[in-house]
Amino acid sequence: MKLNRDCSVDYADLEMLLKNSKEKTLVSLMHANNEIGILLDVQKVSELCSTYHSYFHCDTVQTIAHYPLDLQKTKIHFISCAAHKFHGPKGVGFIYVNTDASIKPLIFGGAQERNMRAGTENLYGIIGLAKALEIGYRELEETKRYIDGLREHLKKRVTSELQGIILNSPDDGLFTVLNVNFPPSEKNDLLLFNLDIAGIAVSGGSACSSGSSIGSHVIAHLHRKPNSTAVRFSFSKFNTIAEVDFVVEKIKEMMLVPIN
Amino acid sequence: MKLNRDCSVDYADLEMLLKNSKEKTLVSLMHANNEIGILLDVQKVSELCSTYHSYFHCDTVQTIAHYPLDLQKTKIHFISCAAHKFHGPKGVGFIYVNTDASIKPLIFGGAQERNMRAGTENLYGIIGLAKALEIGYRELEETKRYIDGLREHLKKRVTSELQGIILNSPDDGLFTVLNVNFPPSEKNDLLLFNLDIAGIAVSGGSACSSGSSIGSHVIAHLHRKPNSTAVRFSFSKFNTIAEVDFVVEKIKEMMLVPIN
Repeated sequence: MKLNRDCSVDYADLEMLLKNSKEKTLVSLMHANNEIGILLDVQKVSELCSTYHSYFHCDTVQTIAHYPLDLQKTKIHFISCAAHKFHGPKGVGFIYVNTDASIKPLIFGGAQERNMRAGTENLYGIIGLAKALEIGYRELEETKRYIDGLREHLKKRVTSELQGIILNSPDDGLFTVLNVNFPPSEKNDLLLFNLDIAGIAVSGGSACSSGSSIGSHVIAHLHRKPNSTAVRFSFSKFNTIAEVDFVVEKIKEMMLVPIN
Repeated sequence: MKLNRDCSVDYADLEMLLKNSKEKTLVSLMHANNEIGILLDVQKVSELCSTYHSYFHCDTVQTIAHYPLDLQKTKIHFISCAAHKFHGPKGVGFIYVNTDASIKPLIFGGAQERNMRAGTENLYGIIGLAKALEIGYRELEETKRYIDGLREHLKKRVTSELQGIILNSPDDGLFTVLNVNFPPSEKNDLLLFNLDIAGIAVSGGSACSSGSSIGSHVIAHLHRKPNSTAVRFSFSKFNTIAEVDFVVEKIKEMMLVPIN
């Protein structure tokens, strides 16, 4: 399936693929890209999958408890969730499987979870997930507004006060992420390293490939800027404007002080 | 592979199978059976597997932190562990893979756990497991002695005070389990149910098949006693002699009072 230049899904191409497919197809797409935060039009993909009798799995890991999702209105066969994305415990998540669909388990053995996932359940994790989900949805609008403010503040400061900045995240993307491209320079090569030293936790790619030296395939699709540095800033309701200002000041110091 | 009448492994048959096998074989055996507690001679199986160049997976879920196991002396390619078996948290465990062996992951995606198990780790679970393991091994002898006392007390009372009792567990089996067979009677049919009502948590089979009405295949191998009831009593260091006495008194009441 083709992607547009901004990493969004080429829905016309998706439709053509589904139309021409001779077999029952599974469409698996992220609701929000984890690196730059571009959002999928879930309703559109859901309707395309309905029209062409395809299965739809949506990786909603970045968006559950951040965006409302009504599975009565938007038919999705499978959605996946990880609790730590909304202040729940690490190492617990779920998959929702619509009753119209069925899948075979990966882990066999006991009859737990209706034979779908053998093994003793992580009870306190499940309880933590449910509570975090409840809080997440209860405070959805308020949290979004607050985090939007933090993100806008960072966006405004980096674009107005620093040279050569490109925003890798779209304006209307996932509100918890801002991916910023720093221009090639000796100083910027070590930006991620120096931010880490300064106690600022940011990411150069996805957490799943942390420590890897291979560049992000997402950023590579977005633009080819050799030696530039993409930094993903992530925000939660526990961050503050003062923290954003601290980060900007630190980056300014790092970009001004020569490394050698 | 054949089992002896008491559910122990027929080692001669295992050897014959390995000797005649033309392919590299994986031998997968439980260190202790979860229902009746019969123990495997791990050293013997390890040596057989070495002789015939077979892989050995030992399901040590029931025995880790209960029995010492020196993997330098006893070569086992894979052992598995679940934390809740030794007062660690539920829903966390590990597999040990000897460097001589390699397996392919079941869960793909991120590079976590050296590409062996994608997904964000259950950190607090892992920490809890490690702490419980440390305490388990530190207090190994003391705990075993204490629980042996509880188990012997139950064994002595049920066999001397109740009629028609058969012990499904061997004398030298897993010290945390005593599986007791109650003779067929209207009263005993509801024994598990009534023990539950009385707040006594016992099991009729394995936890993995709780709620299932199919009898235990382990007990069926041991003896064919239609309509008899097998009850698995499990002990921990947090149980007391007074609790064992309470259980015995309750069972005596249940066996004396007619159900209709």
